[in-house]
Amino acid sequence: MNNFTFYSPTEFVFGRDTEQQVGALALKYGAQKVMIVYGGGSVVRSGLLDRVKQSLDAAGLPHCELGGIQPNPVDSKVYEGIDLCRREGADMLLPVGGGSVIDTAKAIAAGVPYEGDFWDFFVGKAKVERALKVAVVLTIPAAGSEGSGNAVITRMETLQKLGLCAPFKLRPVFSILNPALTCTLPPAQTAAGIADMMAHIMERYFTNTPQVEISDRLCEGTLKAIIAEAPKVMANPNDYEARANIMWSGMVAHNGTCGVGREEDWSSHALEHEISAIYDVTHGAGLSVIFPAWMTWMVTHNMGKLVQFAVRVWDVPQPSSEASDAELQAVAQEGILRLKQFFRSLDLPTTFAELGIPHPDIDRMTESLRRNKGELLGNYVKLTMEQCKEIYRLAEE
Amino acid sequence: MNNFTFYSPTEFVFGRDTEQQVGALALKYGAQKVMIVYGGGSVVRSGLLDRVKQSLDAAGLPHCELGGIQPNPVDSKVYEGIDLCRREGADMLLPVGGGSVIDTAKAIAAGVPYEGDFWDFFVGKAKVERALKVAVVLTIPAAGSEGSGNAVITRMETLQKLGLCAPFKLRPVFSILNPALTCTLPPAQTAAGIADMMAHIMERYFTNTPQVEISDRLCEGTLKAIIAEAPKVMANPNDYEARANIMWSGMVAHNGTCGVGREEDWSSHALEHEISAIYDVTHGAGLSVIFPAWMTWMVTHNMGKLVQFAVRVWDVPQPSSEASDAELQAVAQEGILRLKQFFRSLDLPTTFAELGIPHPDIDRMTESLRRNKGELLGNYVKLTMEQCKEIYRLAEE
Repeated sequence: MNNFTFYSPTEFVFGRDTEQQVGALALKYGAQKVMIVYGGGSVVRSGLLDRVKQSLDAAGLPHCELGGIQPNPVDSKVYEGIDLCRREGADMLLPVGGGSVIDTAKAIAAGVPYEGDFWDFFVGKAKVERALKVAVVLTIPAAGSEGSGNAVITRMETLQKLGLCAPFKLRPVFSILNPALTCTLPPAQTAAGIADMMAHIMERYFTNTPQVEISDRLCEGTLKAIIAEAPKVMANPNDYEARANIMWSGMVAHNGTCGVGREEDWSSHALEHEISAIYDVTHGAGLSVIFPAWMTWMVTHNMGKLVQFAVRVWDVPQPSSEASDAELQAVAQEGILRLKQFFRSLDLPTTFAELGIPHPDIDRMTESLRRNKGELLGNYVKLTMEQCKEIYRLAEE
Repeated sequence: MNNFTFYSPTEFVFGRDTEQQVGALALKYGAQKVMIVYGGGSVVRSGLLDRVKQSLDAAGLPHCELGGIQPNPVDSKVYEGIDLCRREGADMLLPVGGGSVIDTAKAIAAGVPYEGDFWDFFVGKAKVERALKVAVVLTIPAAGSEGSGNAVITRMETLQKLGLCAPFKLRPVFSILNPALTCTLPPAQTAAGIADMMAHIMERYFTNTPQVEISDRLCEGTLKAIIAEAPKVMANPNDYEARANIMWSGMVAHNGTCGVGREEDWSSHALEHEISAIYDVTHGAGLSVIFPAWMTWMVTHNMGKLVQFAVRVWDVPQPSSEASDAELQAVAQEGILRLKQFFRSLDLPTTFAELGIPHPDIDRMTESLRRNKGELLGNYVKLTMEQCKEIYRLAEE
């Protein structure tokens, strides 16, 4: 096990009607003026935005707002938010929504007290030293941004989709998770969220760090819970209990619990970011295409953990200790097949064509990847750009 | 799933040589004067205490110390510590040791700014409103106090062993976990620690709250990791990797991760506290006697979760969906048997006699239990005092 720091200070307030506590919690965490950040009309239509404002009003907290954040959130809204926040003198960002809204709020929180361009943080030119407080009302379980110190933003001018990680500065002070708010999510969004949270676990699971049994088991357990609960939310969107299990799993998947003491991979996320940056597809749907392709490539390059994945997560029978390489490969392939079947059962795509991209421009994506990430990608196997192309091609099949 | 709050703000710094960071971390968390709390001579002999002091010195932090904390820590050391801490003007408690030392430090941290008797917190007469900061250098993985807001202290005058839970006031600001420091633990203490952390999970696992798949899986995964790693640390005390897995599992077992959204039980802990309060045995050894007895009693009173425990944690074959009650009971019994065999493989006792108490005074323990806990105990089945006696008697067999 590698040395590590685990720090997840967020107060998670989970359950029915918990959004009514937002005003009291914002006060408790020292807010004096709150800037609400949200996306499209659903939080307006559902009345959630009004309930949040009422709770802030009841706590005597003034507030301003920034709406219109889109999926695959872009830098222009961050600049707009930084300007607005400075003008209004807000000291707490309150995203009400999913990962795009939360990540935009985090970028604003880091950008407001910074004199330079907030994009410096995303290209590694500057580190986040100070940030406004961020608190969350979550409506989409997927990105895990409610418990992480991460944010992903796309720069429109260059179509660069890049991430920022500032775990000591950008983790929310509190996050409100009411599963009932997720019952109205469309099936496609529910399914994409499930693929995203599974990917967050798998990026951590596939590692060469030996003897990490406790985090292996936490990864496998969280995946098994998601696999058990996902069909229930697809069959009955109003199944509160299944929604609750999925919502909490999405947090566990990305607050660090599953990654302690191990080298993580994250190449599938980087491969996917090129797809969604260029083709503006849903991140989770891109992941359900790329991750099985990445695994298939790994069968012949670094099989070890794939066998464990097949046996422990997908209940493929344990091969004997004398199993041949071909037999082990068959076990690994069976695990990947079951993952693909699972994604398909949620109506998720597992090929570029199913993602709506019949002729992906693999050269362009790989060039962009090289610009954003350099010559080598990931850790489980450090992939050259040629090998990344091979994985993109496997996703065409 | 029940509504819940999950709040685990501690910064965990895990791995080799991490105790060298204690001075810098104490500064980061605003300490001005540190009171070190420790137990017997082992932290002195090993040189750990000196290394901690050197790190504080290097950070320019003055410090004082309170040594001599015993297992099953008692109120007299808390009073002594409160006096010393006030006299010295320390503002951060730094326990260097295991649960007894940490719990004593927490009681001092709550007692110093309180005008009344600190015992008020333990008997429910007062709530902890303010506390000094607590930070930890852990040497014994067992109690999970390094990540919890709990403390257990024994009042000598009345032989009452009671717990305090103040998750928002007494969670450590940081905890340093170096698995290498645990390699010198005697086998009996290692084993008792393992029983203690398993019990922390099982107290949460056995619940009537339905549809808690994610926390079920986190409980089961952590138990499976402990079950895999425990034989390695017993066979080779210097196995750093296995020690690391055990140490982190002990934290996960008790910081709340395993208990979210569910009613917890805690009757086995209360039953055990009477044993260790009266007979001064090791808490973990008392738990390896009581928990299987509690489970055995449950087979005929509330079997449901025992079957899942047997199948998922101990790999007992899944019974068919048409299994009779007798067949299900056999599955549950097999799970309990495997737990007992596991405890025995670690040289832990599973009967009162093996615990060194050939003739336990069950009436006395039950009377004390009634005084401390009232007429009903636990949640999985709310136990009358007569039923508690039945469980104590099962532990004689």
